[in-house]
Amino acid sequence: MEITSFNPPRRILMGPGPSDVSERVLKAMSRPTIGHLDPEFVGMMDELKLLLQYAFQTQNALTFAVSAPGSAGMECCFVNLVEPGDTVIICQNGLFGGRMKENVERCGGIAVMVQDNWGRAVDPEKLEQALVAHPDACLVAFVHAETSTGAQSDAKTLVQLAHQYDCLCIVDAVTSLAGTPLKVDDWGIDAIYSGSQKCLSAPPGLSPVSFNNRAAQKIRNRSSKVQSWFLDLNLVMGYWGGDGKRAYHHTAPVNGLYGLHESLLMVKEEGLENAWARHYRNHLLLRDGLESMGIHFVVAETDRLPQLNAVSIPDSVDDAALRATLLNEYNLEIGAGLGELAGKVWRIGLMGHASNQRNIDFCLKALRATL
Amino acid sequence: MEITSFNPPRRILMGPGPSDVSERVLKAMSRPTIGHLDPEFVGMMDELKLLLQYAFQTQNALTFAVSAPGSAGMECCFVNLVEPGDTVIICQNGLFGGRMKENVERCGGIAVMVQDNWGRAVDPEKLEQALVAHPDACLVAFVHAETSTGAQSDAKTLVQLAHQYDCLCIVDAVTSLAGTPLKVDDWGIDAIYSGSQKCLSAPPGLSPVSFNNRAAQKIRNRSSKVQSWFLDLNLVMGYWGGDGKRAYHHTAPVNGLYGLHESLLMVKEEGLENAWARHYRNHLLLRDGLESMGIHFVVAETDRLPQLNAVSIPDSVDDAALRATLLNEYNLEIGAGLGELAGKVWRIGLMGHASNQRNIDFCLKALRATL
Repeated sequence: MEITSFNPPRRILMGPGPSDVSERVLKAMSRPTIGHLDPEFVGMMDELKLLLQYAFQTQNALTFAVSAPGSAGMECCFVNLVEPGDTVIICQNGLFGGRMKENVERCGGIAVMVQDNWGRAVDPEKLEQALVAHPDACLVAFVHAETSTGAQSDAKTLVQLAHQYDCLCIVDAVTSLAGTPLKVDDWGIDAIYSGSQKCLSAPPGLSPVSFNNRAAQKIRNRSSKVQSWFLDLNLVMGYWGGDGKRAYHHTAPVNGLYGLHESLLMVKEEGLENAWARHYRNHLLLRDGLESMGIHFVVAETDRLPQLNAVSIPDSVDDAALRATLLNEYNLEIGAGLGELAGKVWRIGLMGHASNQRNIDFCLKALRATL
Repeated sequence: MEITSFNPPRRILMGPGPSDVSERVLKAMSRPTIGHLDPEFVGMMDELKLLLQYAFQTQNALTFAVSAPGSAGMECCFVNLVEPGDTVIICQNGLFGGRMKENVERCGGIAVMVQDNWGRAVDPEKLEQALVAHPDACLVAFVHAETSTGAQSDAKTLVQLAHQYDCLCIVDAVTSLAGTPLKVDDWGIDAIYSGSQKCLSAPPGLSPVSFNNRAAQKIRNRSSKVQSWFLDLNLVMGYWGGDGKRAYHHTAPVNGLYGLHESLLMVKEEGLENAWARHYRNHLLLRDGLESMGIHFVVAETDRLPQLNAVSIPDSVDDAALRATLLNEYNLEIGAGLGELAGKVWRIGLMGHASNQRNIDFCLKALRATL
């Protein structure tokens, strides 16, 4: 075998994530590795926690980054909050609701599915009907920003409904965090997970999570052990806990956390409201350009995610061939459709560091030249 | 809050891991992030698989890196191979055998513990007695190189015994991979996991694993679903599989895998046998220096791990104060004791890139000056 150092091409990442990572964050990734119990590293973790609390708009003490990608963040929420026999209502309007169902069932829970069409927001009325029909339910879960369709749901209303019926609420914010308004404390979200590689524009591999006191209490009062040792919050918090002592649990991904720290710092420097406004502004620019080319959005205007633009592939266009041309001739990545939207849509991301006018102009130009 | 970019000090990492990461690997970590389904990235993954097969000395098709630290690699082996009601014999001679027990029990399995003293190799006779006493056992698990004590066990013999009694064998090679002889195919190991941050000297956060056909068959023939969606090999292999098609499962930690690729390439360039010999040679140098200062090893000479030197803390020395002095005045990290050896031993690592004469001289000088 003839293998040499890997030198990736420099792409423009306008798919569903990872998004373009800034030079600042890449540089942070390459700083010298130090020990995961080194006081300097522990100090960095304390800062990271503050920065995550800011990004999530929460005071939750139980706020940290799971040492694995967003799928593990999802699993962290479910394995800690679901016990065998629990009934969980899942509002599904895209691919990731289906993954939630898998999680609930693998925890021994009973998943009650509330279905909405792919590309639509979750319908609060359907959720309320399910809550009425299933008074034994103790949890509600939904995706705030469906990465598979580009639709966002009204998280505040859905969480309120869940609480009215004495359910805790798990929210998937993988694609929403730092790209669109999200207020964990104001909205009363009990447990939430996200990913490093979307609107935070850090490399993939980490999953920011946060749990409020009600969720933490449910976890502490479990009658069965959490089925995952790696994701058991009762153990993880001995390492991430704010009590000054750090008990060894697992070895944290040191350099990955350097990168996340830097990316969160950039969000803080810009200001969360400014970041939300920038994502929205750039979405409008991209929308105008696409519509002027006769390319139409899948999601109704009211439900669109500014950071993930799902558009119908024009008739007579070869999906795979076009994306290959963009990648090979323009170094431009846009996303394919997933699940039932495969082959029908493109997903054009404007996430984090990649949400800028230069990328929009470049993408529109490349599409015009290629179509 | 006043938070700025994090600039870690440059330490010399001679603890139980992470070990010193080379400039080459750090530079690889900072290369531009590309998509996890990008053909260029998929090509890199194919190379990574070949490099891992070389490091593990295996032809196993099911060889890849779990997108999370070694603890998740351990969990990946157990959740895939243990079904509820399975009896698993665990040979414990340190901290990590205890973690295996937690894993088995959280999978609904029955753990039969075979205990050896901390700092001793696993006793094959005790394993055989347990195999005779528990004919219903279907799995044996043990730690090849106990990071908590610095002892190594005779993996080949233990695996042979397991097979004689129709058990598959899970081996923890977190600290042994690339530091001490390890031959997955020759020794017949059925499932194995390691970590990126020990003798491979990549940053922490990834767990190389390998499964042979017998293990893969057991996983395919399970009567129950794997309890972890994130770690379910039936799903993960759709992404890492060698069939040319890559199905989206989770978003791979792109830059972390760049780093692991580079570190494995360095192992390949040096040659595995040369790396083993270097670790052994440097262990002897460190040993001679420590013994000349009256510092004694915890583990009997025949069972010592060259890459992790556990020594008794001399009487009248303040453990925490001495390690703090080394860290603050010499930027030198050595490891504390864990579990029942806490406060009694130091663990001095000579792993991967950190296993060199300069580090040994520096460590001995610092210890002489400080004691």
